[in-house]
Amino acid sequence: MRPGKAYQWLVEHHRLNARYDSIRELLGWDQRTHLPKGGHSNRAAQFATLAALLSGRTTDPKIGEMLGEVEGSSLVRNRFSDTAVNVREWRRAYERAKKIPESLAVEIARVSSECEMAWQSAKQANDWQAFAPHLGSIVELKREEAGRLATTNVAYDSLIDQFEPGETAESIAAILSRMVKPLSDLTNEICESAFQPKVEILYGDSPIWKQKELIRQITKRVGYDLGSGQIDHSSHPFTSAIGTGDVRITTRYKKDCFAEALFSAIHETGHALYEQGLPPEHWGLPRGSAVSMAIHESQSLMWENMIARSEGFWKMFYPMIQNYFPWLQSVPRSEFHFAINRVQPGFIRTEADEVTYCLHVILRFELERALIGREIEVEDLPDAWNEKMEKYLGITPPDYAQGVMQDVHWSGGAFGYFPSYALGMIYAAQFHAKAAEDIGDPETFFEAGHFGPFLNWFQENIYSQGSRYLPRAIVKELTGEELNPKYLIDYLDKKYAKLYAL
Amino acid sequence: MRPGKAYQWLVEHHRLNARYDSIRELLGWDQRTHLPKGGHSNRAAQFATLAALLSGRTTDPKIGEMLGEVEGSSLVRNRFSDTAVNVREWRRAYERAKKIPESLAVEIARVSSECEMAWQSAKQANDWQAFAPHLGSIVELKREEAGRLATTNVAYDSLIDQFEPGETAESIAAILSRMVKPLSDLTNEICESAFQPKVEILYGDSPIWKQKELIRQITKRVGYDLGSGQIDHSSHPFTSAIGTGDVRITTRYKKDCFAEALFSAIHETGHALYEQGLPPEHWGLPRGSAVSMAIHESQSLMWENMIARSEGFWKMFYPMIQNYFPWLQSVPRSEFHFAINRVQPGFIRTEADEVTYCLHVILRFELERALIGREIEVEDLPDAWNEKMEKYLGITPPDYAQGVMQDVHWSGGAFGYFPSYALGMIYAAQFHAKAAEDIGDPETFFEAGHFGPFLNWFQENIYSQGSRYLPRAIVKELTGEELNPKYLIDYLDKKYAKLYAL
Repeated sequence: MRPGKAYQWLVEHHRLNARYDSIRELLGWDQRTHLPKGGHSNRAAQFATLAALLSGRTTDPKIGEMLGEVEGSSLVRNRFSDTAVNVREWRRAYERAKKIPESLAVEIARVSSECEMAWQSAKQANDWQAFAPHLGSIVELKREEAGRLATTNVAYDSLIDQFEPGETAESIAAILSRMVKPLSDLTNEICESAFQPKVEILYGDSPIWKQKELIRQITKRVGYDLGSGQIDHSSHPFTSAIGTGDVRITTRYKKDCFAEALFSAIHETGHALYEQGLPPEHWGLPRGSAVSMAIHESQSLMWENMIARSEGFWKMFYPMIQNYFPWLQSVPRSEFHFAINRVQPGFIRTEADEVTYCLHVILRFELERALIGREIEVEDLPDAWNEKMEKYLGITPPDYAQGVMQDVHWSGGAFGYFPSYALGMIYAAQFHAKAAEDIGDPETFFEAGHFGPFLNWFQENIYSQGSRYLPRAIVKELTGEELNPKYLIDYLDKKYAKLYAL
Repeated sequence: MRPGKAYQWLVEHHRLNARYDSIRELLGWDQRTHLPKGGHSNRAAQFATLAALLSGRTTDPKIGEMLGEVEGSSLVRNRFSDTAVNVREWRRAYERAKKIPESLAVEIARVSSECEMAWQSAKQANDWQAFAPHLGSIVELKREEAGRLATTNVAYDSLIDQFEPGETAESIAAILSRMVKPLSDLTNEICESAFQPKVEILYGDSPIWKQKELIRQITKRVGYDLGSGQIDHSSHPFTSAIGTGDVRITTRYKKDCFAEALFSAIHETGHALYEQGLPPEHWGLPRGSAVSMAIHESQSLMWENMIARSEGFWKMFYPMIQNYFPWLQSVPRSEFHFAINRVQPGFIRTEADEVTYCLHVILRFELERALIGREIEVEDLPDAWNEKMEKYLGITPPDYAQGVMQDVHWSGGAFGYFPSYALGMIYAAQFHAKAAEDIGDPETFFEAGHFGPFLNWFQENIYSQGSRYLPRAIVKELTGEELNPKYLIDYLDKKYAKLYAL
């Protein structure tokens, strides 16, 4: 077969896979937003059905044959052409998929769907004993998966690779370890400062319909296209890219504090902007897909923190918020800005401030690395969790729900995902610094409500690129430098020195 | 292969089809409740993908082989055994499916999804010209489908057969024609009565959150299991049986009149009670599936009208409603009961009273029969619609949205469905009369809030039977009589003679 025809076959084959995936994405969205309790076993069976179907399609030996026809042909001569990028990623995915028998893929789909449901109710009841056996099952399956996928002598590497192509436990540990001391030092300095924000000003009657309206306005203003999106409620906020023109976010509401719903929604908006900015003409192909979860998280964390917690942003939006929540009318903007940037070691990662956030992630990275590496077992997790909380944040969770059971990731089988959050922070700061260099101080744009220039910079340099470059290459390409946590540390040092008068 | 093994293969094959169907059901539910505008073309592609998959699976020649092994074996000796019922219905479905090439099945899925979306916006804009070409495409495809499926010389029969096994245009016309005169006479008598209800009492400030709460309470009270269900908003109310433990309903709200949302919700609850009452151990098999749309509609129409518009029902629930909507506190219950039973020729089928309802259906039945039979074309529909409205109901719609464009059915490709509504009314009245004979006057139960005995009668005699008997056989089996519209006419005559003092 001629390479051109083989390539065409690969495009069609993978686009159809992507269509099935987009169906799976809807099942997942529904499971977390609307599915009634009674429907859980049907949902698990639906996931298993699609997993079986996709397993057959992603391991189809014809993929290997067709790739063979294209690789080495002139079609892929230019390494960064659309064709070459697709072929590179298809090969990567095929080599991984081949190693996983259908029975294992189906079992993981079924058990992780069940485990996630068990987590939902067990977390509410703070019932570790009820949850642990489910988690144990999924850990066993993921260990098996990791073992089969391994290309290094560290099985966990292969789980990371799924979310962060090119990274290993070692490469991640190397970069994260450089942050522990600066972040701990900054946290301590902040805690000892005589200046502390009054966070109680963030609390007051916050009717949910007002929060919803406010969130629609702000997310739309920063660039989220609601004609191709939708905002729902879920207990753990997430973004679901169901397909071209259908990128949904969720948030969660507290009746006495709009801030949680708002910042969660902006976090998810960051993910959604990336997904909405991918080139639709390459939909369903690597060239049109997000390259890694760290790049994804760089966007969510950047929009949530570097933008939506900046002074410029609130120069723009504070009057609107005061309008919605009259109890803020007597609170000066500077006090509000200080309060939403309060740094304090806490139990919950998703509620953590920018300074302590990476410490939460480092803890999870170390635990899952040990868990997949069989250095610890599920039964050891609660104690190990609490020890590390004490070590990194100096506090001990009062219960499981605020400790080891707080996140959805492990129950859904997403081992290897957590490091992406911390890497995302690092990417975000480095991108942000470069964007500021290129287009001028972003805050002056935000202050005027002009998000366009900033969004365009990301649209052009990152979103529209899909998976053209691997994450570390993007940063190299854009900034001329290697990925470097110093941008994050500098940003934090500068911002918090000013806020806390350090 | 031994018959037992062949049967097992058929069970597994059809259960997997049912699982794909349950995924398709979720896509449909989402399309009508949450899908953002931008996601429509992805949704159409998802439907087409599943249609292609299911087309291959429902026409698999192995089904024919396996059926051949089982048919004539001792497994199906007892005609109404679970095995025989499944085999009978699989054969019926296979003979139909074989006649439809995959390309046509996929095209119908894609075009009807697109047409339904076009209908949504065209209806809002009252734009027949924008809608007609879409409808034209789907009519052409359905004509082709009907022609291929035909086993009689009337192509339309084969579309009816899909919803009402055993019925034909002729058999339906025979029964419906017996109702035109009695219904028209009763309508005229009512319109001329000196006693008329004050419908304005139904209008007043009806905050949507109150309507939602009320609907949850009432639907739960009558027996809808919300742990396996969920109530959403959509512009055209519907029920979606996504799978065991997941049967959802929708309704639509008006801010100044809770009655519309309430009665729509109870209508859908009737459908949901049937679906929730199907035997879960036979899920995915004909024995565990609803037998026809008329039996389905018999339940929705019975719960909506014969129960929720009865005196006994409101003896129970009127105080609750008055509590929610204080403007009703000065309205006597009898006036409220009269108002919710107002009979008046109107434009909208879904808002029609019990007396004129079947006339709306007869109009649609005649039009779609002529349309599929190529006696009229899509461009003739608006005039033909208005003529028949004048003939049967004595009124002419002021616009398309309240006329030919009001229903979702045709745009979704559901030609052949409408007759099921009128048949449903007839079945409902005959079942209701029999249930009353067996367990005593239902109204005295409703008055005391005891829906159990009545629901149990249906559970035992109809819901739990799945597709064991064809619709007309159910009525014969239960009542010893043929299906007979006299029960409906008698019920209406008696009820409305009392209300309107005829």
